[in-house]
Amino acid sequence: MRIVRYALDGRVGRGVLVGDAVRELRDSEPGAEVGRLSELTLLAPCEPRTIVCAGSNYAGQIIEKGRVWPRQPSLFLKSPNAIAGPGAEIRRPAEVRRLEYEGELAVVIGRTARDVPADRAADFVLGYTCANDVTADDWRADGQWARAKSADTFCPLGPWIETEIPDPSALRITTRLGGQVVQSAPTSDMVFGVDALLAFVTRWFTLEPGDVLLTGSPAGVGPMLPGDPVEVEISGIGTLHNTVAAGEAPEGRSGKTVLS
Amino acid sequence: MRIVRYALDGRVGRGVLVGDAVRELRDSEPGAEVGRLSELTLLAPCEPRTIVCAGSNYAGQIIEKGRVWPRQPSLFLKSPNAIAGPGAEIRRPAEVRRLEYEGELAVVIGRTARDVPADRAADFVLGYTCANDVTADDWRADGQWARAKSADTFCPLGPWIETEIPDPSALRITTRLGGQVVQSAPTSDMVFGVDALLAFVTRWFTLEPGDVLLTGSPAGVGPMLPGDPVEVEISGIGTLHNTVAAGEAPEGRSGKTVLS
Repeated sequence: MRIVRYALDGRVGRGVLVGDAVRELRDSEPGAEVGRLSELTLLAPCEPRTIVCAGSNYAGQIIEKGRVWPRQPSLFLKSPNAIAGPGAEIRRPAEVRRLEYEGELAVVIGRTARDVPADRAADFVLGYTCANDVTADDWRADGQWARAKSADTFCPLGPWIETEIPDPSALRITTRLGGQVVQSAPTSDMVFGVDALLAFVTRWFTLEPGDVLLTGSPAGVGPMLPGDPVEVEISGIGTLHNTVAAGEAPEGRSGKTVLS
Repeated sequence: MRIVRYALDGRVGRGVLVGDAVRELRDSEPGAEVGRLSELTLLAPCEPRTIVCAGSNYAGQIIEKGRVWPRQPSLFLKSPNAIAGPGAEIRRPAEVRRLEYEGELAVVIGRTARDVPADRAADFVLGYTCANDVTADDWRADGQWARAKSADTFCPLGPWIETEIPDPSALRITTRLGGQVVQSAPTSDMVFGVDALLAFVTRWFTLEPGDVLLTGSPAGVGPMLPGDPVEVEISGIGTLHNTVAAGEAPEGRSGKTVLS
């Protein structure tokens, strides 16, 4: 089942995609038709409060960057203000020169997950969607990656939650920039798979329904420029399309700020 | 006005504290009495999605730690799973040896704040509460501070939101551990005040009503042990009480995990 969130006539709803029709979601089953996909605007398919992310989690990326092989998952956070929907603009802040795409498999939590054993992790997953872990490389120098990873629009999610993924390690993730493939890897290249990540994270982080776990990005991370279309496609799920836009310079915005 | 969130007879509500009575919150005014403070359980007074925190923001702490004077605010995130209410236990994970208190002034956002100029920041603030930016010092070595700052219960907030604070730089923050004062400083010692922080943060982070900005901790940060009572008191607001508890070792918990 493909679960969507949408905006239609000023109203926000959740539904199920059947062919190109969005139908109501009633008792976890498709109900009456709400509209055609072309008539409505898809939004990020869930509304997480906690977003936990694994860094350096693909073999190819670790080798590419010459990093030490990790003994345990390396975690960071993204904040909900960063969420953007499918089709939405990714805004490159005026102060940022190097904005990077990172195509990732996103795990959407289905029920409260605390101290989840790896062999039961799948019971706590609602489904999977595509994510772009947008990163302002300039701001990694902040030390903590709050701005680098969580400025507005730095967490596109979508286009929907696919609930029928029997094996999340048997997918292929492909990122395209301007139509060119820039990342392509099987999810079996993850150092810590979805089950191991969920077990690790939920030892300390209680995840609630709708919360999201990002599972790391393959080799090939690189810069995006304003105007670039960027796509994250995951086999069995779908394709998340976004376009990069130039953010306004501070002087062009409504507010004056006192700090550079 | 003191805005509370509470649990009473299995129901969660928002209200206003008048004397020791909690009254309904109706059109931003106190309504009918819900119960006495002693009859209900106070919860964290807001439900933020985005929690942005400033590090190294008190002159005394920068001098104490021998840090470089900051040119701009240093930001990190906490995630909502970490929120704990007044009176709640702060759980020290079994793997953590050094768990630290950090008493802080928390700013609660009142309306959508994006590109807020410093001289209008107060218009976007609902009020202020006390926070303990609990930190697992052992886990700072992770690089990113996701576990160090955001494990469950690492963000106690409360006891209520005080909306009548004309000048947030004219408060005194005092932290007590086992009744002994361990931190005490005027909020005028902040390097970047509330207005400047809000201007800085909202250039990139759109904050929504209920979101929280933590403003940094004074000198005197130190360890807490299981059994310790810890209090963060801010003049004009109130006192946030919590007690430290030992978290269960992984083997004592429901789930088996595959990683150490």
